[in-house]
Amino acid sequence: MTTTSKPSAAQQFTEGMVHFFGDGGGHGSRALRDLLGGKGAGLAEMSSLGIPVPPGFTITTEVCNAFYALGRTFPAGLAEEVAANLKLVEDRVGTKFGDPSNPLLVSVRSGARVSMPGMMDTILNLGLNDATAEGLAARSGNARFAYDSYRRFVQMYGDVVLGVSKESETDHDPFEVLLSAKKRDRGVDVDTDLDAAALKELVAEFKALVLERTGQPFPNDPNEQLWGAIGAVFNSWETPRAVVYRAMHNYPDTWGTAVNVQAMVFGNLGDDCATGVLFTRDPSAGDRYIFGEFLVNAQGEDVVAGTRTPQPIAKAARRADGPLSLEEAMPEAYVELAKACATLERHFRDMQDIEFTIQQGRLWVLQTRNGQRGGLAMVKIAVDMVDEGLLTSDEAILRVAPEQLDELLHPVFDKKAPEYESRVVLTTGLGASPGAAVGKVVFTPGDAVQWAARGEDVILVRDETSPEDIEGMKDASAILTARGGMTSHAAVVARGMGKCCVTGCDALQIDYAHREFTVRVEGRGEVVVREGDILSIDGTTGEVIAGPLPLAEAVFPPEYDRLMAWVDQARTLRVRANADTPEDADRARSFGAEGIGLCRTEHMFFGADRILAVRQMILSQTETERRAALEKILPFQREDFHGILKSMAGFPVTIRLLDPPLHEFLPHTSQEITELAHHLGLRSADVERRVEGLREFNPMLGHRGVRLAITFPEIYEVQVRAIMEAACDLRTEGVDVEPEIMIPLVGMEAELEELRALTVQTASQVLTERGVTIPYTIGTMIELPRACVIADRIALHADFFSFGTNDLTQTTFGLSRDDAGRFLPSYIKRHVLERDPFVELDREGVGGLIRLAIEKGRATKPDLKLGICGEHGGNPPSVAFCHEAGLNYVSCSPYRVPIARLAAAQAALAQR
Amino acid sequence: MTTTSKPSAAQQFTEGMVHFFGDGGGHGSRALRDLLGGKGAGLAEMSSLGIPVPPGFTITTEVCNAFYALGRTFPAGLAEEVAANLKLVEDRVGTKFGDPSNPLLVSVRSGARVSMPGMMDTILNLGLNDATAEGLAARSGNARFAYDSYRRFVQMYGDVVLGVSKESETDHDPFEVLLSAKKRDRGVDVDTDLDAAALKELVAEFKALVLERTGQPFPNDPNEQLWGAIGAVFNSWETPRAVVYRAMHNYPDTWGTAVNVQAMVFGNLGDDCATGVLFTRDPSAGDRYIFGEFLVNAQGEDVVAGTRTPQPIAKAARRADGPLSLEEAMPEAYVELAKACATLERHFRDMQDIEFTIQQGRLWVLQTRNGQRGGLAMVKIAVDMVDEGLLTSDEAILRVAPEQLDELLHPVFDKKAPEYESRVVLTTGLGASPGAAVGKVVFTPGDAVQWAARGEDVILVRDETSPEDIEGMKDASAILTARGGMTSHAAVVARGMGKCCVTGCDALQIDYAHREFTVRVEGRGEVVVREGDILSIDGTTGEVIAGPLPLAEAVFPPEYDRLMAWVDQARTLRVRANADTPEDADRARSFGAEGIGLCRTEHMFFGADRILAVRQMILSQTETERRAALEKILPFQREDFHGILKSMAGFPVTIRLLDPPLHEFLPHTSQEITELAHHLGLRSADVERRVEGLREFNPMLGHRGVRLAITFPEIYEVQVRAIMEAACDLRTEGVDVEPEIMIPLVGMEAELEELRALTVQTASQVLTERGVTIPYTIGTMIELPRACVIADRIALHADFFSFGTNDLTQTTFGLSRDDAGRFLPSYIKRHVLERDPFVELDREGVGGLIRLAIEKGRATKPDLKLGICGEHGGNPPSVAFCHEAGLNYVSCSPYRVPIARLAAAQAALAQR
Repeated sequence: MTTTSKPSAAQQFTEGMVHFFGDGGGHGSRALRDLLGGKGAGLAEMSSLGIPVPPGFTITTEVCNAFYALGRTFPAGLAEEVAANLKLVEDRVGTKFGDPSNPLLVSVRSGARVSMPGMMDTILNLGLNDATAEGLAARSGNARFAYDSYRRFVQMYGDVVLGVSKESETDHDPFEVLLSAKKRDRGVDVDTDLDAAALKELVAEFKALVLERTGQPFPNDPNEQLWGAIGAVFNSWETPRAVVYRAMHNYPDTWGTAVNVQAMVFGNLGDDCATGVLFTRDPSAGDRYIFGEFLVNAQGEDVVAGTRTPQPIAKAARRADGPLSLEEAMPEAYVELAKACATLERHFRDMQDIEFTIQQGRLWVLQTRNGQRGGLAMVKIAVDMVDEGLLTSDEAILRVAPEQLDELLHPVFDKKAPEYESRVVLTTGLGASPGAAVGKVVFTPGDAVQWAARGEDVILVRDETSPEDIEGMKDASAILTARGGMTSHAAVVARGMGKCCVTGCDALQIDYAHREFTVRVEGRGEVVVREGDILSIDGTTGEVIAGPLPLAEAVFPPEYDRLMAWVDQARTLRVRANADTPEDADRARSFGAEGIGLCRTEHMFFGADRILAVRQMILSQTETERRAALEKILPFQREDFHGILKSMAGFPVTIRLLDPPLHEFLPHTSQEITELAHHLGLRSADVERRVEGLREFNPMLGHRGVRLAITFPEIYEVQVRAIMEAACDLRTEGVDVEPEIMIPLVGMEAELEELRALTVQTASQVLTERGVTIPYTIGTMIELPRACVIADRIALHADFFSFGTNDLTQTTFGLSRDDAGRFLPSYIKRHVLERDPFVELDREGVGGLIRLAIEKGRATKPDLKLGICGEHGGNPPSVAFCHEAGLNYVSCSPYRVPIARLAAAQAALAQR
Repeated sequence: MTTTSKPSAAQQFTEGMVHFFGDGGGHGSRALRDLLGGKGAGLAEMSSLGIPVPPGFTITTEVCNAFYALGRTFPAGLAEEVAANLKLVEDRVGTKFGDPSNPLLVSVRSGARVSMPGMMDTILNLGLNDATAEGLAARSGNARFAYDSYRRFVQMYGDVVLGVSKESETDHDPFEVLLSAKKRDRGVDVDTDLDAAALKELVAEFKALVLERTGQPFPNDPNEQLWGAIGAVFNSWETPRAVVYRAMHNYPDTWGTAVNVQAMVFGNLGDDCATGVLFTRDPSAGDRYIFGEFLVNAQGEDVVAGTRTPQPIAKAARRADGPLSLEEAMPEAYVELAKACATLERHFRDMQDIEFTIQQGRLWVLQTRNGQRGGLAMVKIAVDMVDEGLLTSDEAILRVAPEQLDELLHPVFDKKAPEYESRVVLTTGLGASPGAAVGKVVFTPGDAVQWAARGEDVILVRDETSPEDIEGMKDASAILTARGGMTSHAAVVARGMGKCCVTGCDALQIDYAHREFTVRVEGRGEVVVREGDILSIDGTTGEVIAGPLPLAEAVFPPEYDRLMAWVDQARTLRVRANADTPEDADRARSFGAEGIGLCRTEHMFFGADRILAVRQMILSQTETERRAALEKILPFQREDFHGILKSMAGFPVTIRLLDPPLHEFLPHTSQEITELAHHLGLRSADVERRVEGLREFNPMLGHRGVRLAITFPEIYEVQVRAIMEAACDLRTEGVDVEPEIMIPLVGMEAELEELRALTVQTASQVLTERGVTIPYTIGTMIELPRACVIADRIALHADFFSFGTNDLTQTTFGLSRDDAGRFLPSYIKRHVLERDPFVELDREGVGGLIRLAIEKGRATKPDLKLGICGEHGGNPPSVAFCHEAGLNYVSCSPYRVPIARLAAAQAALAQR
């Protein structure tokens, strides 16, 4: 027997395990991002740019991988490197780690290659114990600050490292319970009113809670605290929520996370202290001003957690009735901050997301990274930066994530509708992520998942959200929170998902136990909204509206049109739409489609005016009966094709002849069968027998596609006649038409050979009858592995191939899309598959067959036209594959046409 | 648009359109068989060997193809060539075509590349009309002969060329009705007692019948007759029965048929005349003597039609109470015939099938061809011919059709059973095709098809069979006829099909109308056997037995063992068996299997003693519950594997871990569900919900194979444990075991990687526990197109690949085997597919993927072991593919092991 070798645990470290940064120096740079993580690289780079950064050091991502390779233990030599760097920090700051008389406190944070907001755990004020806390109190002359820091540290460490946290979704945080009790006990409303003695008591109560819950005393040795925190950061890389986030964003596990240990600076030493987060531009609308929030006398997590309502940074962003801005409250610090923002944005050539602290009037920048933004902002910022000379137009194209264009394309509320005029606004919060959504209210992420799974649109309503809620947020149509600002967890995650979100609706009184919220509405008193009630949410204005509002098409900003003009210049891949109706075709044209790549004819068969004839056709016993029924269908089909060819005048329209198994058109309940039998003058039992006789074990692999036409050629014959007659009518009206007739599910050469002959014969007959010339072509869908293998033979009879990647994925994997839901999620979760092959084209397997088919097809016919239809045509990585593989076009749903255009341009630029 | 070009109608003729033969001369040779057809080439060759052949000419197969290419019209120039050759024949024979005073009569016969007995139509005595008949009467001095020939000609021409025949299966031939009426009218019993006047009246009545049925007078012009007959031969190439026969034997349509026009010689000029057919050896047993039959004063079709009971040719073959042999009746002619037989057999180095006529004591050989024979004869003749120095042992191997070995392998009646001792023999006919069959009586081919379709074994009972009956004969288990000899249609066709057949049971009185037959049985009076009654038929002894008899394994003749020894010497491909039980494994070994290529474990799950535990396992909600149920299954599985590994001691045994979707193991009726719920202490509704929840849209593409183990790894873990524990037990007992653990349905690298790790871990644990070393390997079934495409990656984790070509065919074609029955027959019929890809491996598509997988797999691991399991492994052309593609072994059902061994040897010899 042979066995596979495990990855070697002993791995090389590129440049040591630990990198120092801070105070103008620093060995890191942006080029080391993979090694230091985004946060560590940013700190090192900021330091070298002269930005005021507290000193510290970064443990590299390679150490994280080694940690896992060694069964979650630290590699040899790490302890020594950490100690040496800690010494450097002590020297710069002039304090000493664990020294009761002058203690150094540090923060410990994770930092992966790209920002994963809220996903990784952070420890602040590490190094405190009873002795150092007392020392800190003495040094700072502020015992309240010292014990506030201490209780925060114990709370955070207890939660993140020692796992003491709430035990169910509706439970409360046990530390917060003690904190609230203490406030009640002392008769105060806000944390800052608790005095040092109360906080000291709290520390003891927190430690007792830790001992009770874990059976172990809280660690007092700062070194033990430090290594516990480092381990917790590494361990958090594999928590379920981190894994889900990576799966959602297709980030590989092998990236690992770095650990940043940094000297603490304090925003909570008094009223000349503050802490805040900002974006250098508005991450929703894209406008250029400092968009952010701060809190006086607070630590950073207070801003993100949304427990206090923060103040804006720029004066321009201050609400009329809102608190003072930083620009007004601390003008010197604001000027310094604005300078740092400008330096960093120019340096990184991108909008920055910055965390800062002001300690006794002095600004410290704690972190910078490229800021996440909504689709609208993404487009506007990219185009603005071209105008500002920061980017070329090609770079601007590469800056826009194709998936996020989706946000621009989706509907908004129809402001002209009378319902909009008379809407009842329950309250107005912060428009944290733009878009419009209508859905039923749910109060837990679990309910959001369940309701969505049964097809409901839901709005998830929470006091605030936290990383555990991600699954529920993913499935909700919109998110509404009572607390938190524009940079709260809910806001950041929702923007990342392109999902409508309103935060900071202080007016909402949420009662989780009764699954309802109460809101006082001007002139209506208290309104109660219960689980299942319908709301409309406007993520731009922040309005929360009772009941459903009608939606309207989105309007694009001028920057969108400029961007897309560059996009169309850059790309070589054509983009068509899948459309079955003139309405869809019109929408597709408005989105820039250059033809129709897939017009399915079966949907037309279901029309109320023709389904009876279709059923009569299916139930026919002889070709004569079948032809009689088809004669009734012909004029309807002709009309269908007339409409769609006219809508796409001047562009090619690929029409797929009938594809689904016939039983899909027949009724299945006995009452419907009886009715049908009555209509057609047949016996119910006969109809039932026929319905039963058409049932299949594996309909996906059954009697469908071209197989229908091999047994009943007259079906395709009539469809071809309808297409050609419609085309002739339009030609006579002076309309340019380019029908491409597509035979589905071909797997054998003779299938296409026969049907091509029938098509040519029928088409020629119509053209002769009408005395018209039409440039039509005949091709096939390549959607079976066998078709790929014998593509050279199939190409003999095809003018074009259109890859039907939905079915090709099913047959290549031997995986029914309808059934895969039962096990595919566990495949993704366990990384057997990195991503769902029905969403993103499987390059290796399905892509391998497509490349084979292209090679063989073009060997036979060098000018063979090649395209892809099916949902992969609108998926950006799949579009990139299509470009690389040398296809002529992709076809996707109308709403995804702009996304495909952008993805095609990016693929072309990437190839240069 | 582009169009495909039709095949050009104007084609080249290799060596003219017509070839002359006869009287020692002749331009043809065996090398021209493709052009002249088997019959034409044989005639030309015989002529050049000095065999007495009546002169004539052959219109080539190319003319047939041209005929179809030209829309069923004759190519230009053919008329002139035919006329010139007809003149040559006239010159040799000394008569003139259409000359009333001295008319030349000719036969017109078809002749394709290989013999297709009974499938093509023949016209005799062509050239007769009122004038030439009178002239023939005068010339021969035998008016009765002339008018008998004339009425035969009109009858045959009317039937075959003009289409006047019986109008339904149970109808009687309309000419025969008139003939019978005439005999009744004249008070005679046999045709030969009708005098010239009566026959002359019959000719007029026949012609009137033709006029009435066709609306056209019977053609009197011999030339019109000739061209009608030539056209009829060509047209018969595309009759449904010919098409069915070719489909059955995989003969391409493009072969076409030749037409042989030959001077008539007469076996019906008096009692010194005779006609007969023979095989140079016994086509059932293979013994070396002239095996055949003749009739005095008759034409050839009388022998085949079985309307008179014929006489044997060799004295040795004469039955005690039977008529005289030719050897006795016409000793000089017999000697000459025996000489011709010896010459021909030596020349062709094969057993010959010869038609001859004796006209006034002079022998004419009308036709020779390689004789069809049963499997037993095929083996014996091939081996005998090696002993006779006619063939080498390699040639002998190539002479045996692998499929026909099947006949030797199938059961015979168990002669030691008490039921055999006490059997009731209804009658004894001719053992026309060996084997034993038990089945229900049906009386029409249509019923045979229908009954067989619903799974019944049927015995088709007919007075005699004709080519229209082929479909029914194919589906019957055996054929029993009241009339006809050893060379009758039924006998020849049944031997070709390797199907048990008894002919010439004169005692049977068949009443089609009442669907019964009556037979007088010694001591029991008249016994009536009705449709649906069970008979046992012995195709060797000719016995027809009432009721079912038990069957026993066949015993092989010594020639079989000698042949198979040569076979095993010649082949390089190993042959294993698919077997799930020790009994199957034992049988497989006895047939020469060199291991088990596929041992399915799911059948074991259905055992009555364990199905409850299996169901409990499936219905488990947690891994703990599932493990508890699996613990109950473990000892049963261990026992299963113990048995099968022991049976195959010394050979490798590939065990496939659980493959089918779990719902296959659950009950589906509500009563069974209630019972199961009761047994397991569950609520019926919960069980029902689980059963419902496991239902799949496309189970073929669903949650099965390795996918089960990705979600429930403990299932495979327990199976691996059972295998290894059984192997250890056997090892301890001193038995050599070689388990090969096979993971099914792998399509992704990580699937196999994970399961290999689990398997190694489990196996190592068992080996450590037992302190034993076992040479086991781990591999996968390659049965998905994706697995072929990424075979290089899969090979990293596999010691062997076993191609599961059943599923690979389904996924490559996108064709469900369970559903394809609805349209695949029409695909085959219309030649969209040349053959059923589930029977014979599709070389182009599926084979292309297999070759890709082999190339990629061996690139990663040059010593990767490669095999095929699934039914193609026993199909000779598929075995040839496997040899060519470089597989190490094939695996097939035990009964097909010898067939696969032979096919493998032939493939190896073909490659040399």
